Amino acid sequence: MKKEVFHGKGMGLIKKDFPEIYEAIVGLNEVVYTGKALDYKTQKLIAVAIAASNSDDRAVEKQIRSAVKDLGATKDEIMDVLRIVLLTSGMPPFVKAVKILYDIEK
Amino acid sequence: MKKEVFHGKGMGLIKKDFPEIYEAIVGLNEVVYTGKALDYKTQKLIAVAIAASNSDDRAVEKQIRSAVKDLGATKDEIMDVLRIVLLTSGMPPFVKAVKILYDIEK
Amino acid sequence: MKKEVFHGKGMGLIKKDFPEIYEAIVGLNEVVYTGKALDYKTQKLIAVAIAASNSDDRAVEKQIRSAVKDLGATKDEIMDVLRIVLLTSGMPPFVKAVKILYDIEK
Amino acid sequence: MKKEVFHGKGMGLIKKDFPEIYEAIVGLNEVVYTGKALDYKTQKLIAVAIAASNSDDRAVEKQIRSAVKDLGATKDEIMDVLRIVLLTSGMPPFVKAVKILYDIEK
Amino acid sequence: MKKEVFHGKGMGLIKKDFPEIYEAIVGLNEVVYTGKALDYKTQKLIAVAIAASNSDDRAVEKQIRSAVKDLGATKDEIMDVLRIVLLTSGMPPFVKAVKILYDIEK
Amino acid sequence: MKKEVFHGKGMGLIKKDFPEIYEAIVGLNEVVYTGKALDYKTQKLIAVAIAASNSDDRAVEKQIRSAVKDLGATKDEIMDVLRIVLLTSGMPPFVKAVKILYDIEK
Repeated sequence: MKKEVFHGKGMGLIKKDFPEIYEAIVGLNEVVYTGKALDYKTQKLIAVAIAASNSDDRAVEKQIRSAVKDLGATKDEIMDVLRIVLLTSGMPPFVKAVKILYDIEK
Repeated sequence: MKKEVFHGKGMGLIKKDFPEIYEAIVGLNEVVYTGKALDYKTQKLIAVAIAASNSDDRAVEKQIRSAVKDLGATKDEIMDVLRIVLLTSGMPPFVKAVKILYDIEK
Repeated sequence: MKKEVFHGKGMGLIKKDFPEIYEAIVGLNEVVYTGKALDYKTQKLIAVAIAASNSDDRAVEKQIRSAVKDLGATKDEIMDVLRIVLLTSGMPPFVKAVKILYDIEK
Repeated sequence: MKKEVFHGKGMGLIKKDFPEIYEAIVGLNEVVYTGKALDYKTQKLIAVAIAASNSDDRAVEKQIRSAVKDLGATKDEIMDVLRIVLLTSGMPPFVKAVKILYDIEK
Repeated sequence: MKKEVFHGKGMGLIKKDFPEIYEAIVGLNEVVYTGKALDYKTQKLIAVAIAASNSDDRAVEKQIRSAVKDLGATKDEIMDVLRIVLLTSGMPPFVKAVKILYDIEK
Repeated sequence: MKKEVFHGKGMGLIKKDFPEIYEAIVGLNEVVYTGKALDYKTQKLIAVAIAASNSDDRAVEKQIRSAVKDLGATKDEIMDVLRIVLLTSGMPPFVKAVKILYDIEK
């Protein structure tokens, strides 16, 4: 899951100008995504859930894309995540995330 | 996972006085926790993640307790959930959830 | 207020592919918008308030549009809602919602 | 609705030590609660909705108490507010607010 | 810091149509930005921190721009603010705010 | 500011059972609190602001206590932070944080 850190324009800027922050985030990322008790895909689905619950569209898209492309999550698995979002966080974050999922699937 | 709905004083009051709301929540709960693409335990861990990310102590406790007691989640599995909370939502919600986990484990 | 459920691309996708979720949401929506103790317009204004307090631009637009178009809410009524948002949730969500209201009014 | 400002230990401390902040809040409060397009009770119910949606227990209790005691809101009216919270913000804030409502009613 | 209130289309609309709200916000703004115990720049950096922690992109941009243009805040000062956001609020709001900072710097 | 990491029961548990997470947090903390462009006290006041804006009572208390005890922040400085919270995040988080400040001052 380390590659994820290296994606994205924001992290590139940080790496160049604030390498010590970049290194700390890499270090954090490594102890977060361990894939030990839970496998990577489950951990990534959890990141999808948190992003969707927070109505953070950009993060939802980034996390769903990574779950689908990098870790082979299926649409039904993502939907099983978003069902929990519907129950715990209400309709607006659920419907927004469903739309993002469908846009990515296309 | 239907039993979850029937727990708790709040839901008892709703069932008695507003049975139509209760029925709608039961109906919602049934389509949320399907255990199909993801099993019940994974879905419950996702509920733990959302509660912790939102810093909702009462929900964190309720969800961790249910994950551990009803679905056999281990401390290491819960910690793998909370690692994602640390990365995506910061230290305060992470540390609070860790404390709740340890209080429940005792 | 049931029509509201049927609006929107997101709900259309859900209806087609996950009809059981769609039915549960319709069931929930029916017990939420009862128009009994409070009339529909007041309930819709409450939905405007929650969306604005959460700084959810898309939901603010959707809810204000529905309040104005479907239920005849006036600009002054919406503003009386947003005044509460200013006091309880601060200037940024208030100013954003006011701009959305004016864009819709045009 | 001005009395509300004068309630509470926090506002008393602010009035004594930071009178200019106190005056600004009083001024704000006056332009917020106008009771013109919407009456006071409706505005107060909106404040209940926002507090409940934000899972702010203390504010929920304060606002429901004020709605019931000062403005004669009924349990069914508060429940019609909380129904919207269930749909837009999910089960945990809804159930918590219902419990607070029942505790106040007793 | 009063000029800030007069910026922005939203506040212009409010001034024209709801002058009493406008005046209350001006009054509030005056007691908020006092520049007494903390100077204006520090207070503005605090506003940057809150906007970034809340993942409110529009407010982040507005506040960083004002910090840099009006109060001479440097990129390193803004980054020292955003470091706290990383620790307390997680990676997504941090990375988004860093990108906005760099877009403004250009 | 490293001592802060070592305070608190939660971090003690993490250090003992998950030393790799503990080390990553220490590493992160070191690159966050640099005291370079902004001094430690200003960075701590920013942490107070974020905690108060998020209505996280426990974090508000912890951060204000640390600002006052460890870094010599005055009541007026904390109040200048909370003024920004009032403007950007509304009355409820502001009043709650003021009460916590006064309780600590006693």
